[in-house]
Parts: sequence; structure tokens; C-alpha cells
Amino acid sequence: MLLTEPRHAAFHAPLPRLTEAKAALTREVLVVNEFGDQRLLSIPAERDLTVYVDKRELVTLMTLGQHPEWLVLGYLRNQRLVRSVHDIESITVDWEVGAASVKTRAGIDSIEERTARRVVTTGCGQGSVFGGLMDEIDQIRLAPEARLRQSDLYAMVKAIREQESTYKTAGSVHGCALFRGSEMLVFVEDVGRHNAVDTIAGWMWLQDPEGMDGADKAFYTTGRLTSEMVIKSAQMGVPVVISRSGTTQMGLEVAQRVGLCAIGRATHQRFLCFTHPNRLWRDVEPQRPPAPLAQTSSM
Amino acid sequence: MLLTEPRHAAFHAPLPRLTEAKAALTREVLVVNEFGDQRLLSIPAERDLTVYVDKRELVTLMTLGQHPEWLVLGYLRNQRLVRSVHDIESITVDWEVGAASVKTRAGIDSIEERTARRVVTTGCGQGSVFGGLMDEIDQIRLAPEARLRQSDLYAMVKAIREQESTYKTAGSVHGCALFRGSEMLVFVEDVGRHNAVDTIAGWMWLQDPEGMDGADKAFYTTGRLTSEMVIKSAQMGVPVVISRSGTTQMGLEVAQRVGLCAIGRATHQRFLCFTHPNRLWRDVEPQRPPAPLAQTSSM
Repeated sequence: MLLTEPRHAAFHAPLPRLTEAKAALTREVLVVNEFGDQRLLSIPAERDLTVYVDKRELVTLMTLGQHPEWLVLGYLRNQRLVRSVHDIESITVDWEVGAASVKTRAGIDSIEERTARRVVTTGCGQGSVFGGLMDEIDQIRLAPEARLRQSDLYAMVKAIREQESTYKTAGSVHGCALFRGSEMLVFVEDVGRHNAVDTIAGWMWLQDPEGMDGADKAFYTTGRLTSEMVIKSAQMGVPVVISRSGTTQMGLEVAQRVGLCAIGRATHQRFLCFTHPNRLWRDVEPQRPPAPLAQTSSM
Repeated sequence: MLLTEPRHAAFHAPLPRLTEAKAALTREVLVVNEFGDQRLLSIPAERDLTVYVDKRELVTLMTLGQHPEWLVLGYLRNQRLVRSVHDIESITVDWEVGAASVKTRAGIDSIEERTARRVVTTGCGQGSVFGGLMDEIDQIRLAPEARLRQSDLYAMVKAIREQESTYKTAGSVHGCALFRGSEMLVFVEDVGRHNAVDTIAGWMWLQDPEGMDGADKAFYTTGRLTSEMVIKSAQMGVPVVISRSGTTQMGLEVAQRVGLCAIGRATHQRFLCFTHPNRLWRDVEPQRPPAPLAQTSSM
């Protein structure tokens, strides 16, 4: 197992050493269509990754496996099991045995109790957010002055549309991306979007160990704006979340509470801002359709 | 709290007494569109329901709340925490406090150990399937002779398309349905599709306490055919699963292993059969398009 230093390590305190385990993201399967004809179809690969922390089994994640080390790091961060990226000495992923071995520098305090409460969240949701996550959202302070330009929002939607992806070849995955202005910093897909956002959280932690750099960023997801997606974005200090899909009531409530700008149904020039429209800077005026089209809520 | 006998109780052994707690499935919120114009939008309601078994807290589910008692019953069934519906004396849901109180007749054996292992499954997945679920799939025997008529498949897709739904008014929910032939027996929506399928599992248990009646049924979901959806269908003895969406590798592998016919991308006359096409009875020949259209796998 080759352990390499993170490529973006620009800080004095040591960052975790990570493997760079690779796995095929798609596979071809033989299917039969409505005429009884056989054809080959690409589907997303999916494999289970059991996470061990200091040799203790923590959880099994089902993942596409694009960046498993970032995923594990972001999972530990978003579950608030680890407070600082520097607490992790190494993450070693071995697909042969489907295991991620996390070595901490000094153990994790009271890990038993902190993983005892379970909350099963909404679809494509994490599923298992260890309890206490909601308790912490009132401590979150998102930068009050952070704004998103409408022109950048349009650039983001266009960048996502043009991005090469597993979705385009195999479907059935969710994509997440982190943007600064119109610049796409990182794009991750996974079978579950909770994994995609955890992977981005892990990547961010390596770039920005103090977690101070979220304010000028926006988070994009193809999935719905559930409470979990909103909470995770807020935990990363990112004040804007954009989705191709809609929102749920709890996603909306959490966004309102933490001061996060939640934008949904974003396609081409169209979108709906669900909360905190004050964060949206209307620097462009989209073209109104020639004849007024009825906007329905059942998209 | 009014406790009523299940309406379909046709068995001698006592069935659980269930409340019929009601809650609004949608709410209206004020949103701002791309022109800065305000408008009202319906979104799916979502609330948390903490499940207590014999006064011990088990899990918190985030749910639309369409049939919370069936949901809790199906959850206990699909997690294999309860082996017989007759083991449950009552399920009392109170939305005022967001609690479902389950009373068993004789307790649940070793519930502590059995809820200790966690598997975080794929998107829109249950999230938290207590361990051991995969261990049991090799014991599943789906009726080898069970077949689905292609004409019934088309009738199912049409019935779903015409069904009144929260999805049509508010979006952002998954729908699941159980069919016998072309007849829709039950249709359930929830913010997470794992909840929708658990709710159907609960309903089935009340109709069919011995769990013997799955063979002549087919299960429809708007969501992807993940391993979890396939496992749950197989656990209910239902040998065919149909989806509007695609599949994932683990969903496919589990379907192959248990002998389940998995059909995806089902819209109008089109579909792809991923596994066990022998279960599909091609009693109708769909019309071939006038000019051969390229079928892409990136739908």
C-alpha cells in the first residue's frame, strides 16, 4: 500500500497520509429491452467499504469509490467524530478487502457513546447521522455578507451540464460540486449523494484544515435539498446551496435557521430561491419568455 | 388517542392495534424566482418520528407521515427486529410529540446487540440497515414459477402515471406501489423511498401475517433499484421489482442472487430488464418506433 502526502498540503501541522485507491466506476451488463433484444448497458459500480478507526469497526459505506479516502475523511468530519483533520494520522483504503483503515494520532474520545444514537434521514440521505448533529446547528454562523451573483449561478449550472460524468455514461448517480464564483473546484459523484458531499467535505478539509474558507463558496447538488444536505453545507461554512431538484420541509427549515441561501430547480436560466434571497445578487436579468409560461410546482 | 382495529383483520391471531394519525402532506412556502418575483410553492411536508419500543428509544425516522403506523410496522419487519406481526400489541403515533410508541407482547430478544451494527446504504437508501440483513438473503426462496405479463407491466406504468400524488403537487418525494397483475393494491409516497417501501411492508404484514402471499405481486418504485430496495422486496416474497430509474451494481447483484426480476427505465412502452428475463412473459409486442431511435444508457 503506497501512502502519499496530500498534493495540496500547504500547512505546517501534518495532514493525514492517504492512499489513492482506484476502482472502476462503471461496468457493463447485458440487459433485455421491451422487444426481447439483448444489449450492453453501463451501470455505476458500487462496492462496500468498511471503515475501521484504530482497528475498531465503525460503519460500512456503499460507494462508487471515486475518492474513498476523501469520503472517509469527510464522513468522520461530518459526523463530528473528529474535530480536526490533524487528528488523523493516515487513511489506508484497500479495495481487495473493501476496508478503510483510519489511524488517529490519539484515539477518538468516547466514540462508543457518540455513535450510539441513530437518526434515519431522508432519501438519498445519509441514512445514519449519529445523533447530536441537529444539536449543533445553532452554533453555526454563516458569513452574513456572503453573496452569490446570479451570473455565477448560471455559469455553475452550465459547468455542471457540460461536465463529463459517470451519470452521462451510466446514470443512477448523484453529482455534487463545490464552486468559488463560477470556478468549479471539485466535482464528485456517488451512488448516494450523502457520500458525494462527504467526499467534498474531506477534500475541503485537506485544502483548508481550519475550515475558515467556506464563505466565498457555493455547493451544487443534483439531489434534493434535504435537511442533511443543508446541515452539511452549513457545517462546511458554505452559505449557498444550489440544486437541480426541489427541497423538503426540513431542508427548508434548517436553511432558514442557519441563514443559508437554498436555491432549487436550477436549470438553464431558471431557478427558485427558497430561503434568504438577500444573498442573491441579481447582476443579470434573464430573458423573459416571449409568451408567459405557467410555472408549475410539479416539475 | 383512538386505537382502532386494522380494517383488514381477517385472521384469528390478534393483529396490532394501530392509531390512524393524520398530518398535512404538503405546505405552501413563499419563494423567489429568477426574475426576483415572489410566488407560492407547495413542498412536501416532512417531520421526525421517534420510535420507542416498549419505552426504549430505537430510531428517529424523517417521514412525510402518510401512514406512520404502517411505516413503523414495516420498519420493524424489514429490520428483522420483529419476526411476527402478532408479536406487536399496538402502535400509537402522536404527531404532537413526534413519537411512535410500540408495545410488544413479550419484548424483543437481544434488541441491544441486534441494533448495534450499522450499514450506511446507497442514496435514498435506508441509510441505517442494522447489520445482518445481507446475511439472510441466501435464505430467501422466491417462487420459481412466478411470472409478470408484459401487458400488466404496461398497465402498472400507466396506473402510476395517472395516480394522484403528492409528487404531482409538490415534487421531491418517491412513490412506491404494490400490484397484483394490473391491479394497484397500495400506493405510498415518502420523502425517502426506504420509508415508502417499509410502509408497504407494514401494510402487507397486516393483510398477510404469514408473509406467504408475495409471489403473485410486483413492486414498483420511482427510485433506483438499489441493493436495499431489492433485498426488501425479496424479504416480502415479491419476485419482480419495476423502476422508472436505473439500477446500481449491488442492486443488480442481489437481484441475481435471490432470483428476482429487476426491471428499470420503465416509461410508457419502454423498459430494460436487468435480471431474470425468464420471469417476463412477453404476451404483447410493443410497437417498434418508425425510425430506429438510438437507445442511450445515460437517460
